Amino acid sequence: MSDNIILSLAQARELSKSILMDNRFSEDHAKSITDVILACQQDDCHSHGLFRLLMCTQSMKFGRINGSANPTIVDAAPSVVKADANGGISLLAMDAALPLLIEKTKKNGIAALAINRCFHFSALWPEVEKLSAAGLAGLAMVPSHAWVAPAGGSRGTLGTNPLAFSWPRQGQHPFTFDFATSQFARGEIELYRRAGKPLPEGVAIDKEGQPTTDAEAAMGGAMLTFGGYKGSALSIMIELLAGPLIDDLTSKESMEAANGQPEAPYHGEIIIAFDPNLLSGGRAAANNDRAERLFADIIDQGARLPSQRRYQARERNLARDAVEIPQTLYNDLLALRK
Amino acid sequence: MSDNIILSLAQARELSKSILMDNRFSEDHAKSITDVILACQQDDCHSHGLFRLLMCTQSMKFGRINGSANPTIVDAAPSVVKADANGGISLLAMDAALPLLIEKTKKNGIAALAINRCFHFSALWPEVEKLSAAGLAGLAMVPSHAWVAPAGGSRGTLGTNPLAFSWPRQGQHPFTFDFATSQFARGEIELYRRAGKPLPEGVAIDKEGQPTTDAEAAMGGAMLTFGGYKGSALSIMIELLAGPLIDDLTSKESMEAANGQPEAPYHGEIIIAFDPNLLSGGRAAANNDRAERLFADIIDQGARLPSQRRYQARERNLARDAVEIPQTLYNDLLALRK
Repeated sequence: MSDNIILSLAQARELSKSILMDNRFSEDHAKSITDVILACQQDDCHSHGLFRLLMCTQSMKFGRINGSANPTIVDAAPSVVKADANGGISLLAMDAALPLLIEKTKKNGIAALAINRCFHFSALWPEVEKLSAAGLAGLAMVPSHAWVAPAGGSRGTLGTNPLAFSWPRQGQHPFTFDFATSQFARGEIELYRRAGKPLPEGVAIDKEGQPTTDAEAAMGGAMLTFGGYKGSALSIMIELLAGPLIDDLTSKESMEAANGQPEAPYHGEIIIAFDPNLLSGGRAAANNDRAERLFADIIDQGARLPSQRRYQARERNLARDAVEIPQTLYNDLLALRK
Repeated sequence: MSDNIILSLAQARELSKSILMDNRFSEDHAKSITDVILACQQDDCHSHGLFRLLMCTQSMKFGRINGSANPTIVDAAPSVVKADANGGISLLAMDAALPLLIEKTKKNGIAALAINRCFHFSALWPEVEKLSAAGLAGLAMVPSHAWVAPAGGSRGTLGTNPLAFSWPRQGQHPFTFDFATSQFARGEIELYRRAGKPLPEGVAIDKEGQPTTDAEAAMGGAMLTFGGYKGSALSIMIELLAGPLIDDLTSKESMEAANGQPEAPYHGEIIIAFDPNLLSGGRAAANNDRAERLFADIIDQGARLPSQRRYQARERNLARDAVEIPQTLYNDLLALRK
């Protein structure tokens, strides 16, 4: 693809930080956001890489994001950290709370971080991979906006409600997945709409609650969860654990709060961390071998572990010290400099 | 159905306890097992009700279950209870560990119970409903036997790996679900096989790893997970959290340990409990209202919350003080008395 531009990792980082700081994000926020955007870009997760800067700066225009909010970290209970983002993007709150979450998990065996009152736009896998890098297993969940109908329903009530998990592996990339509980991502429906292509069956309903393969009708109706009633139940669980459990909004409340503006959803996030040493009674090494036999048995039959394509991209891009983005995106990003 | 027999709840309880104690289960085990079997039977969960006594007693015949094992409860870390079932059925260990799990959760905000070295045959919803009855939210996961292929795979590696969740509701039955991460339950495939009916597409593969709708070929091959690669990722997570994380067997190791005998799987179980009060910063009541608005929005559009049929059966059967089982099953059960 000749219409791409290649940036060194340092150039990409500098570009991201400058754009954010030119658009009313503090240096601390710009750093936390850039860390995650770069992690995605170097894994060739283009939808959550530098492209997301367009959404961050657009969200900022609507005036509700506080670009210089300092998160408040509260030691809420022996195994609970609460991080109030105070209306900023979630990522600085995550970074600020992470050391205490890790400390509590290693002391108590399991601990939870509740991030509250944050705007959220990012992939979850960089967060759970921070836990596996610390030798812990981690789970993360967030609501979003009420674009998804429950099984048997006729309108949007649930968010795309992603679930991410990471498991540490010795000397190897962790076992990580991060998937939306909606059948399709919101952006995928939009791509079908732009291309004028019919959606597969089972992905969406129209505004009367009837099944549709028309992407335009789907955008005005609702998406469906993956896996029928089971995926729907899982999505409701995520609404509860990342919403009412931690004193924060459901996807429907978040959507109402946005009042029709195209800004990042505003809600909470729950992260649960597990210490393999305390939970195994000090037998983490033997159980690491057991997990490796499970992975080997999966790979040996020709199946892939999740995230492998991402890890291959990471190795390739780190080795060549480069990320590659479309020239058109690069031009759009330069236009955000001030 | 005229070929059914009606038992009072007391009669059903007495029948279950007697059968278990006649078949080398101690009174403590007989009580814990009967509690769960009765809970299922009174909810008309026939597959996990009195019918399961056939499996319990059959498992006992192979000599590996210790019917009088006293569980060892260890306060393993501030937020971790470990319950070694010492080769007994899981349920007495669960009952013995539950008070400490609840105490730790209410003190620390989140806690985990790892049950180890147990034989397991039961539905998980009675266990998470014990947590919601104590005002906590709860998650439970177990492996089983390696009957299920990972997405893109060709042979059984994963268990049917159920996930159960319960959320407490004021003055109402809790929000509860309990589903296998396999597309079908093992028993459903067996019912298709007996009836000579073809399976739906996407449920199973044959022993060459090819898609099949032949139930006989499926029994010799492997089942598939629900929801494609997402359901497969979730199932692998359950293997890890309920296996290596807590120093216990994977589904494949459990199956190998059974050595071809038709006994209950032998492995571990993880239960995670959440305190809505500590995780919400003391705002559980306001957030309970928020969760109720979510449920109301789901019901209002004609969708059902999970477990509703079960709760209706419970109310009906408790009101008439009766459970109803086939006469043939009753005869089979009487034959287990000694």
